[in-house]
Amino acid sequence: MTIRIGIAGYGNLGRGVIAAIAQNPDMQAAAVFTRRNPADLKLEDKNIPVVSLAEAAKWKGKIDVMILCGGSATDLPKQTPDLAQYFHVVDSFDTHAHIPQHYAEVDQSCRKAGTVGIISVGWDPGLFSLNRLYAGAVLPQGKDYTFWGKGVSQGHSDAIRRIAGVKDARQYTIPVPAALERVRAGENPDLSVRQKHTRECFVVLEPGADAARVEQEIKTMPNYFADYDTTVHFISEEELRTNHAGIPHGGMVLRSGCTGKGNKHLIEYSLKLDSNPEFTSSVLVAYARAAYRLAQEKAFGCKTVFDISPAYLSPKSGEELRAELL
Amino acid sequence: MTIRIGIAGYGNLGRGVIAAIAQNPDMQAAAVFTRRNPADLKLEDKNIPVVSLAEAAKWKGKIDVMILCGGSATDLPKQTPDLAQYFHVVDSFDTHAHIPQHYAEVDQSCRKAGTVGIISVGWDPGLFSLNRLYAGAVLPQGKDYTFWGKGVSQGHSDAIRRIAGVKDARQYTIPVPAALERVRAGENPDLSVRQKHTRECFVVLEPGADAARVEQEIKTMPNYFADYDTTVHFISEEELRTNHAGIPHGGMVLRSGCTGKGNKHLIEYSLKLDSNPEFTSSVLVAYARAAYRLAQEKAFGCKTVFDISPAYLSPKSGEELRAELL
Repeated sequence: MTIRIGIAGYGNLGRGVIAAIAQNPDMQAAAVFTRRNPADLKLEDKNIPVVSLAEAAKWKGKIDVMILCGGSATDLPKQTPDLAQYFHVVDSFDTHAHIPQHYAEVDQSCRKAGTVGIISVGWDPGLFSLNRLYAGAVLPQGKDYTFWGKGVSQGHSDAIRRIAGVKDARQYTIPVPAALERVRAGENPDLSVRQKHTRECFVVLEPGADAARVEQEIKTMPNYFADYDTTVHFISEEELRTNHAGIPHGGMVLRSGCTGKGNKHLIEYSLKLDSNPEFTSSVLVAYARAAYRLAQEKAFGCKTVFDISPAYLSPKSGEELRAELL
Repeated sequence: MTIRIGIAGYGNLGRGVIAAIAQNPDMQAAAVFTRRNPADLKLEDKNIPVVSLAEAAKWKGKIDVMILCGGSATDLPKQTPDLAQYFHVVDSFDTHAHIPQHYAEVDQSCRKAGTVGIISVGWDPGLFSLNRLYAGAVLPQGKDYTFWGKGVSQGHSDAIRRIAGVKDARQYTIPVPAALERVRAGENPDLSVRQKHTRECFVVLEPGADAARVEQEIKTMPNYFADYDTTVHFISEEELRTNHAGIPHGGMVLRSGCTGKGNKHLIEYSLKLDSNPEFTSSVLVAYARAAYRLAQEKAFGCKTVFDISPAYLSPKSGEELRAELL
């Protein structure tokens, strides 16, 4: 009984989902759905059909769980509720401020159709959120800290690329070691945005562009850079390709709390990821298994990682889990 | 609507549960149950009734969840199934090899009585187990590592105390830094017992005891010490009291895995705990909340941390969790 997975969108995340499915013998990549001309998509595995996203509804009954691999800005707010009419769905919606609205819309679609939706799956939101919840429940008197990096922020890299005169760019978010040490020491400090992270930018200029002006525009960009200590390096296209081709990321969630008469405790969860999209895809695939199992129980509606019993993520049985992992 | 918690056993864990309940406004310590003469138990909070464990059944209907604070060797195998006849129960049963049998016995008692039981709650088994499960589901191609310490192992300290000529002792389990570094570097090494942990012992001798003989007995003790590099320090009773009074512990669960074409990922979860029993108690109390909620859904039977949706641990509503922690 193989779980048939549909992949909606074939960017980094979609390719990562196909790679992750190959590591899970109980799953199968049933079809890739795309807004592009299906004939233009060259998959490494020629056995996976490529279908126009517009025809997804015809695959009802042939896909168990659809994993949505689009972006949070414009794709997922529309696609996830749409596709939840026909399939159980899992997405990685990560615009924190809009999660309640997205949840409501997916929930409505799922309940109407009798499907399961799991939204905001990945590592943040996702595994980091889980750690904030577990740690906060165990240590109610305490303080949470989330650090991101060292890793490539796609949003910040894109923001630099939109500046006139910039040909390409890569932005790294880096936790400030001193801030991390204060948290680990149990100081429970109040940390400003600037105190927690620095930003390092590697920028390729268009011929003749004014480096000083570009650097100034980056460092003063509101929201993205103005509140941070930002370093800008101008490099060649060649150097960008050679030294900054990967999409690594990671980070840490910490909770520092106390119990009884002042005993201190530190809970720390950290990720070091060579490939942000492949790791996110691996989390999506594990939650697709959970969606499939919840569907068998007719537990319809929208869920988040908070609502899913951990056992549902694993291919192992309850007996195996208790004997091997507990 | 306060959750009324019964505390069965008043050792370090029982005292920790009372301290943890004080941090959770939705809970109340309803009574302490003891095998000792209740009049002999002097609680700091005089408002908490102390009752003979033999009379626990009379408290049916006055206790929502009973937290068992006895030991895994002889107390819990009998007490958890017994008390599950009358109450929803949570225990910290930690004899890994006997978990399947304990699970079966508690499950039978719970199903017969219509109660919820959650066993093996704490940090290992417990939060560490959760991290092994989550990390393994996300990175199926990888390897798990668990390191314990630096911290006091009660079992090993007790084993030293049983040696003739030993008045008191404290044993610390310490991860080997070089082993940890190899795991963090993604080497996926095969590590022997000796390569992962060292053991450090602080021993107070009885007057006239033969230090060399005691040291030899410790270092050659099968299972406990023979397979480890063990250091023995002889110290005064005064020094033991001053420098080794605490019960700190902690450790790390790591999973090192890869995705796609060899991208490496490291997931690390670590705990640094000033008080092992107080932290374990805090986990027990959070799962008591989950037991109460599962009971309201009539989800009777025995569970482990693997079977509990994370949201059930938190006093926050689904809306609050999605808005604040996701």
